[in-house]
Amino acid sequence: MSKITLTHLAKKLKISVATVSKAINGYADVNIETKKKVLNLAKSLNFTPNAQAAFLRTKKTKVIGVIIPHISHPFFSNIVKGILNSADKNGYLVILLRSNESYVHEKKLVERLLKHNVDGIFISLAHDTYDLSHLEEVKKSGAVLIQFDKISKILNSSKVVIDDRRAGYIATEHLIKNGCKNIVHFRGPLLAQISIDRFLGYKKAIEEYNLTFDKNKVILFDHLTDQEGYRKMNEFISKKINFDGLFSISDYAATGAIECLKKNNFHVPNDVKVIGFSNWILTDKLTPSLTTIDHPGVLMGKTCFNLFLNEITSKAKKVKFKYEKKTFTPKLIIRESSVLNYQV
Amino acid sequence: MSKITLTHLAKKLKISVATVSKAINGYADVNIETKKKVLNLAKSLNFTPNAQAAFLRTKKTKVIGVIIPHISHPFFSNIVKGILNSADKNGYLVILLRSNESYVHEKKLVERLLKHNVDGIFISLAHDTYDLSHLEEVKKSGAVLIQFDKISKILNSSKVVIDDRRAGYIATEHLIKNGCKNIVHFRGPLLAQISIDRFLGYKKAIEEYNLTFDKNKVILFDHLTDQEGYRKMNEFISKKINFDGLFSISDYAATGAIECLKKNNFHVPNDVKVIGFSNWILTDKLTPSLTTIDHPGVLMGKTCFNLFLNEITSKAKKVKFKYEKKTFTPKLIIRESSVLNYQV
Repeated sequence: MSKITLTHLAKKLKISVATVSKAINGYADVNIETKKKVLNLAKSLNFTPNAQAAFLRTKKTKVIGVIIPHISHPFFSNIVKGILNSADKNGYLVILLRSNESYVHEKKLVERLLKHNVDGIFISLAHDTYDLSHLEEVKKSGAVLIQFDKISKILNSSKVVIDDRRAGYIATEHLIKNGCKNIVHFRGPLLAQISIDRFLGYKKAIEEYNLTFDKNKVILFDHLTDQEGYRKMNEFISKKINFDGLFSISDYAATGAIECLKKNNFHVPNDVKVIGFSNWILTDKLTPSLTTIDHPGVLMGKTCFNLFLNEITSKAKKVKFKYEKKTFTPKLIIRESSVLNYQV
Repeated sequence: MSKITLTHLAKKLKISVATVSKAINGYADVNIETKKKVLNLAKSLNFTPNAQAAFLRTKKTKVIGVIIPHISHPFFSNIVKGILNSADKNGYLVILLRSNESYVHEKKLVERLLKHNVDGIFISLAHDTYDLSHLEEVKKSGAVLIQFDKISKILNSSKVVIDDRRAGYIATEHLIKNGCKNIVHFRGPLLAQISIDRFLGYKKAIEEYNLTFDKNKVILFDHLTDQEGYRKMNEFISKKINFDGLFSISDYAATGAIECLKKNNFHVPNDVKVIGFSNWILTDKLTPSLTTIDHPGVLMGKTCFNLFLNEITSKAKKVKFKYEKKTFTPKLIIRESSVLNYQV
């Protein structure tokens, strides 16, 4: 049996889809006889109005699109979890899309979502997104735009972020307070705002504590994987630059670096203290367990949805509305990799 | 600016939505003058047909729904990644939903997806799903149903699974070949087919190698977490039953068990050899690194999409179609936790 739709009913009764829709949805401007015919036929065919019919009526799809750079990153899994929870409770469906850190792809995905008339798009930008016109289009279309985590500072919309500068600062400060004087920094790609901000936090701590900032100790990453962490640490060790700490903006890259340090007979934390970022699952079970920065992904996802709901409700009621930026405070999780004689 | 839709155009021109749709989509049965008017207005308003309009024409939404039990499980992340890749290449959008292992919730989600006229539903069943009428409804609606991983054997549809019985067998056999004679089994919930099959594989290996099957060594789990793994291992140790091996159907529960074993002065692998399941990220970096079973999540996701595409294409062409079941062979990943004097 194929789906019964408004069009089926319209064809059967030789009337327009709009009239059928109006009859089904109880509008007044339909002839009473026609209305009766439509409702009887709908009943006999076991028809229930579908989402497309509801859209014709409400101009809302109750669908949102969520674009994230990576699907397997635990942080993004948590954000998606938070969004899905809230969407579910409010009767929204969530289309999930992955930009794979590509601006070109991200742009295509946004266009596809707009064709589907989603009510909102939540996005964490790709590393190389510089042109923002595709996101201006979202706002022009009437859909709600929410930026999270990897955002553009110059594009107006509600935003959900963590205080990345502070995160970089407290991570570095923690290493300094535990005796580090020469701290290597694994930073992300050059353009991404989060990697810029975490780097600035690192630099601020170095300077405030009167250590010497050395750009040779800042290592750029395109792919924050364990293998790249291993490779870049190996490369750095071969340069024979003195170092006693590592602040990596990724737990995964940090685990690769620790493997490399062990291989080269550096003891963690005795010779080199290490702190990662994101509090990935199982980082508490490594030897040494990994000190890291935690960010509340699930709560951030929930917050994205709440901001979306505020905006769409305000617009529907035509009441005044102001973009909001919610900033979450990162949390230092101290474990064995950064502290001498660490006791649980 | 709000979205321009077929309805806008219809209202402006005081004609039916169906006529506008026909004009836009180049159907013949529209008055030539009307057609010209519609196209001119569409052009002047910068209108592009949206997905809802396309649906009215094609009865296809090019949207699929994917229901998984958990969002943060790495295996499901991989399946979703595989599905998203293929969907993206073929111009489909993916609505992601989480049943949270609840039949009641799963049923509600299926109904919601059907209201949105998705072209297909891919589902991994909740632990407690016994009634299957909501999935029969999917098939009746004309949407394609694909079951993956946690499937029902009695419900007809195309399916993508791993050979769980074989997985349980090779995991247990590996422990036996490494000297284990008393193997504890962490199994999942009673009803889930994957946990039944892995258990049967375990039992088969025990019997084929002439060891004694002991139901006291089979431990049921509702939640396969590290904490539960720790707690249940602790409980088992307190019973003073002799054991020298553990086959856990979850890596995460296995890591909790290993923590507990260490705490109780059992050496892994010298005293107890351990094998997990799923090859979670970072399990290769634990001390000892965790022996496990790998299943190709991304490939399985891709396969789900291909089966969907075959079915929908066959149905559109009205050619004969037969459900397919694709079974992937699990792979043993040998690491330190199960082998004496393991060398990389």
